Amino acid sequence: MKKLDLRIPGPVPLPEQVLRANAQPMINHRGKDFTARLPVILNRLRPLFGTKENILLPLTGSGTAAMEAAVVNVVSPGDSVLVLVGGSFGDRWLQMCHRFGAKIYAIHYPWGEAADPNLVSEYLKQHPEIKAIFVTHNESSTAVLNDIQALAEARSDSDALIIVDAVSSLGGTPVEMDAWGLDVVVTASQKCLMAPPGLSFICLSSRAREVVSKTESLKYYFDLSLYEQMLESGETPFTPNLSAFFALEESLKLIEEEGLEQIFKRHILLRDMARAGIRALDIPLLVKDEWASPTTTSVAPLGVDVDKIRLMIRDELGVELAGGQGQLAGKIFRIGHMGYVTPLDILTCLAAIEIAFKKPGQAVAAAEKTWRFKDESGIV
Amino acid sequence: MKKLDLRIPGPVPLPEQVLRANAQPMINHRGKDFTARLPVILNRLRPLFGTKENILLPLTGSGTAAMEAAVVNVVSPGDSVLVLVGGSFGDRWLQMCHRFGAKIYAIHYPWGEAADPNLVSEYLKQHPEIKAIFVTHNESSTAVLNDIQALAEARSDSDALIIVDAVSSLGGTPVEMDAWGLDVVVTASQKCLMAPPGLSFICLSSRAREVVSKTESLKYYFDLSLYEQMLESGETPFTPNLSAFFALEESLKLIEEEGLEQIFKRHILLRDMARAGIRALDIPLLVKDEWASPTTTSVAPLGVDVDKIRLMIRDELGVELAGGQGQLAGKIFRIGHMGYVTPLDILTCLAAIEIAFKKPGQAVAAAEKTWRFKDESGIV
Repeated sequence: MKKLDLRIPGPVPLPEQVLRANAQPMINHRGKDFTARLPVILNRLRPLFGTKENILLPLTGSGTAAMEAAVVNVVSPGDSVLVLVGGSFGDRWLQMCHRFGAKIYAIHYPWGEAADPNLVSEYLKQHPEIKAIFVTHNESSTAVLNDIQALAEARSDSDALIIVDAVSSLGGTPVEMDAWGLDVVVTASQKCLMAPPGLSFICLSSRAREVVSKTESLKYYFDLSLYEQMLESGETPFTPNLSAFFALEESLKLIEEEGLEQIFKRHILLRDMARAGIRALDIPLLVKDEWASPTTTSVAPLGVDVDKIRLMIRDELGVELAGGQGQLAGKIFRIGHMGYVTPLDILTCLAAIEIAFKKPGQAVAAAEKTWRFKDESGIV
Repeated sequence: MKKLDLRIPGPVPLPEQVLRANAQPMINHRGKDFTARLPVILNRLRPLFGTKENILLPLTGSGTAAMEAAVVNVVSPGDSVLVLVGGSFGDRWLQMCHRFGAKIYAIHYPWGEAADPNLVSEYLKQHPEIKAIFVTHNESSTAVLNDIQALAEARSDSDALIIVDAVSSLGGTPVEMDAWGLDVVVTASQKCLMAPPGLSFICLSSRAREVVSKTESLKYYFDLSLYEQMLESGETPFTPNLSAFFALEESLKLIEEEGLEQIFKRHILLRDMARAGIRALDIPLLVKDEWASPTTTSVAPLGVDVDKIRLMIRDELGVELAGGQGQLAGKIFRIGHMGYVTPLDILTCLAAIEIAFKKPGQAVAAAEKTWRFKDESGIV
């Protein structure tokens, strides 16, 4: 029998009711049904972005589509930008800014560590011409959560916009656009939002909107002014991914029922269980506690063929983990624990891992203690 | 009870089994399951494009995303292009070519008529610098089917690439890339392919691929060289719309079971039934028989509030028709008859229309005769 637990950092497994919602019949995307539903969906997403007033626009495309929309709507060719790169997704910002003709300052921080706000502060003082800073909230290629609030504060007197890839964080850990003063935040449907891939979102501060109106990059599909204009009548300029919206309506119900505070606590627990389990196996974690992502955990076993073990865990034990990307390929495997994941799912995942490393019960025991035992003396 | 027949030119109603396939659980888009399935899906689409060898690439996005991929991969800023505009979708090619810095020659032909191959021929003789011709196969805003074969032949000695928007035609009427010498053909999931929106395709001839490799437009999400490279391992550069692929696997089964020849015949019958019905009501059709689209029919009632009637047909009778776009707004309504549509569906649709125009039975009778009576004397 084939049954596979998907424990990669997206797409995530979808709740049954979300899958069923994905199978709703097609409707007219310009009819009164959908044009009434779209603004409601966007308003329900607003708390996840931590914003009351900012404009939120949907794009039919992968998370990278929303990232590109951020670049081409904010950066004119020749503009100076600062890009923080400490993994594959920081590198994606870099590649994009390069492709679209920005003058680039890059801070390369080690893969597996977080970006240093002090460096950002220094760069901005030395290069006051920097117009925008591109950062990754959760660098899922390394499993590091950057401190976006501190990075945003590091701008101090600078007018630079801060543009955040929150694809693998939003909905799993706090994003506070208003409180932290973020200018552009992008995310996608297939991570903590628990919907199928193919739908992404971009949220813009009023400062960002002013820049967008003056940006000279060439664009059409990603021209946010078109989206903003069409949204006035509850429409998108181009046929939207209706099924993913239907699914999202259902997953938003689950999110609202659990509540953001509890969701964030759950993700912290999943992270702590995963890390306790791996530590109990004496296998190194790539990332220090202070930077550890609530949605992904990177494991860096030494002296073994990491990919071979990962594929054995998939093919023989039934848990699909992710491999390393870029410079971490073959050096780590990654456990995705975002969205529709419970503590029991982490135990299953750790069980498969401890079997592969020939240490039956050890990771599971440690994770159970993290979950339900306050101390060595008894169950919580 | 609310039950609405969706008779717009896309998104189209989906067969039950396709909707159910859309609800399949998520899988790893970089795992062995999907990387084995993706090339098979693309190969099964190849007959619909009428090509044996051309490379076919999937994009996560609306049909417009594939159109933009065509423009930015073929046109460098300053290149001369010829754009044929006779409706909203021809106009979309024009807007895009304009946005991305092409030098534009445009042939504006009347909305409701087909493009004249002789004009194309003359333009190419007078302007040998034209590198690409952008055409619309089925202009769904007017319900005109252009003769792509004749337009392609009109190039005679010119090296200009011919780039075809086949979004609302492919799978409902023949597209023969190889036989007609087409260079780029784009389409989308939510029309004759009977899948949800959010997935589009672009197919390139070897001549087009040579141009793509030299094109200097700025791009990242739409950089087809990335897609071609990743497809070697059965992957897409960015997380694909997995649900739409699952749905497409199921709709391709239906397409293969019916066979393309029969599908094309069915669409001709649906068109002829729709037109016979409207004619029987003494309401003008926008388009002459020779140009009439097999997938959409435009109806141009005189002396009435067209949109008011259309919305009454939706809200009181349960059939959703499309309105006019651009210069045809308020002047026509459109019947979509592509994909999962039977002759009975056309009868229902005509019944609603004839009720609205207070001519009970007349359109239905005419359409039934077109369907099942060879002549006045008896049933076929």
